Amino acid sequence: MLPPDTAPSARPCAIVREVGLRDGLQSIATIVPTGFKTAWIDAAYAAGQREIEVGSFVPARLLPQLGDTAEVLAHAKTLPGLVASVLVPNLKGAERAIDCGADLMVVPLSASQAHSLANLRKTPDEVVAEVARIRAARDAAGSRTLIEGGVGTAFGCTLQGDVAESEVLRLMQALLDAGADRVSLADTVGYADPASVERLFGKARALVGERLACAHFHDTRGMGLANAYAAWRTGVTRFDACLAGIGGCPHAPGASGNVTTEDLVFMLERMGVATGQDVAALLVLRQRVAGWLQGETLHGTLWQAGLPKTAAPAAAVVPVPAAPATLAAISA
Amino acid sequence: MLPPDTAPSARPCAIVREVGLRDGLQSIATIVPTGFKTAWIDAAYAAGQREIEVGSFVPARLLPQLGDTAEVLAHAKTLPGLVASVLVPNLKGAERAIDCGADLMVVPLSASQAHSLANLRKTPDEVVAEVARIRAARDAAGSRTLIEGGVGTAFGCTLQGDVAESEVLRLMQALLDAGADRVSLADTVGYADPASVERLFGKARALVGERLACAHFHDTRGMGLANAYAAWRTGVTRFDACLAGIGGCPHAPGASGNVTTEDLVFMLERMGVATGQDVAALLVLRQRVAGWLQGETLHGTLWQAGLPKTAAPAAAVVPVPAAPATLAAISA
Repeated sequence: MLPPDTAPSARPCAIVREVGLRDGLQSIATIVPTGFKTAWIDAAYAAGQREIEVGSFVPARLLPQLGDTAEVLAHAKTLPGLVASVLVPNLKGAERAIDCGADLMVVPLSASQAHSLANLRKTPDEVVAEVARIRAARDAAGSRTLIEGGVGTAFGCTLQGDVAESEVLRLMQALLDAGADRVSLADTVGYADPASVERLFGKARALVGERLACAHFHDTRGMGLANAYAAWRTGVTRFDACLAGIGGCPHAPGASGNVTTEDLVFMLERMGVATGQDVAALLVLRQRVAGWLQGETLHGTLWQAGLPKTAAPAAAVVPVPAAPATLAAISA
Repeated sequence: MLPPDTAPSARPCAIVREVGLRDGLQSIATIVPTGFKTAWIDAAYAAGQREIEVGSFVPARLLPQLGDTAEVLAHAKTLPGLVASVLVPNLKGAERAIDCGADLMVVPLSASQAHSLANLRKTPDEVVAEVARIRAARDAAGSRTLIEGGVGTAFGCTLQGDVAESEVLRLMQALLDAGADRVSLADTVGYADPASVERLFGKARALVGERLACAHFHDTRGMGLANAYAAWRTGVTRFDACLAGIGGCPHAPGASGNVTTEDLVFMLERMGVATGQDVAALLVLRQRVAGWLQGETLHGTLWQAGLPKTAAPAAAVVPVPAAPATLAAISA
């Protein structure tokens, strides 16, 4: 457990947002019991994590793995300073997120028309219109739940192939105009490379600045960390990641899922970037979670080699202030 | 097979030097028969590879896996335009490389005093003195074999921990002063991160320019590609890599070896950088080599997911001109 009131570091900071409980668990067959999920969250919190995506408000018949999202979220909300987010595919899900008091809801949009229709049964612009309805519902409820528009397939799509950068940027801006508090860019299918990341994130940041709040990479073709580094170079300071790299892609058996949390935290800390997370504690948690996911393919590299001799000791972990979880802070 | 006389591309170019037959095979137990090695080289050449490290001139009792280096080198020399290199630990090995007409010999030096003594039984400065003797022997023989000083443990060491950047830079310069035609920097034990790579390679290039000729990374903690990208950003255009990521570290069971050739080539091509190599052909070769290495742990990610829908077709592979293999070209 980290001391709660340590002064912030002068080091640059980054936030690694754990999405293993959502993007990870939704992609694998094992249904993890609620008690294990809350234990995961407690241990992740103790390891310094302050942003965790705890599930999705989608019909349980579609994703039984995440059917207990309301209970998991209720538990996460008991942890002081934890920003608990959920994914919501539509207004109905958003209403549940608002009712349950989620700190943040991520609304996915596919920049690929083909992927959007296949995955969400809406065109990208219909998703933008849905975000406007979600914003209206949020405001009508007097809720403080932040809205993040997550632009997926931003670097290409398994269905339609290329996705134009101009279309990604247009949709990102449209989401903000429709009322999203912030946006993120996701390489949903592992098509990004560091050069395309620097180019697109650079343009996106030039367009919307800090409202581009997060980078979401998959490690499908081994470039997850390289892409995260490229995004970091453009000024991005928040990254999605999954403990043990869980996730994967149903169209590519054996392919990695999201960037691996412990590998990404290690890379950032090694670069001198404070994440507030204790890598050694994450490796211990990885072992526990691996025990719950017998038979599933896990990913990641650090756990095999262990921490190097020159790694900073755990005592050197510097707490990172919780991200702004208020509308004023985000919209500024 | 690539057309031999296609005009060079206007795209930026990089050279991925295959070191699987040396750094890879020396680290694993399987002894690959000479005929398989020459078949590997032929297929790699057909896939566009023009720089291959074919073995080491060390006593066969120390590395029986590489005991046939002279025969493998003789075969490699029959392939037009192929730059065939070998590793030599000392003057005796260098004399064999000169006798056998290697295009290039890599002389390893550990910037870590502790690693140098353990691995080479010499201090780093004694290795510098050996390079002076190797240069004298090369010149006395009227040989055209290039000398590359490879500065290893440049980012830290499993034995002594930190390695000072100033010491790495001093030794790099000393190797050139002693007569090496060029130098490379190696993260022998997987301690580098992209920030330290940009910093050290940036300083090294500022010091010696193009004579810093190659970056050698291991993927021990998953940062191999991120580090390669960071080095590329500093202007480095030659990278060592091993097909199927073979290699590894005897001190970290299961840890990855060198950066995986097919993953690195794919990343560079995806970035718009011409490598002259056909990724699809490399994936086929990987399968063949995997068949020879039953029971060994292989690495790499691309082979699991396959090429993306938006990958350039094989016909788009642009031949990269062979690297300068003459003293004049290097020393200019």
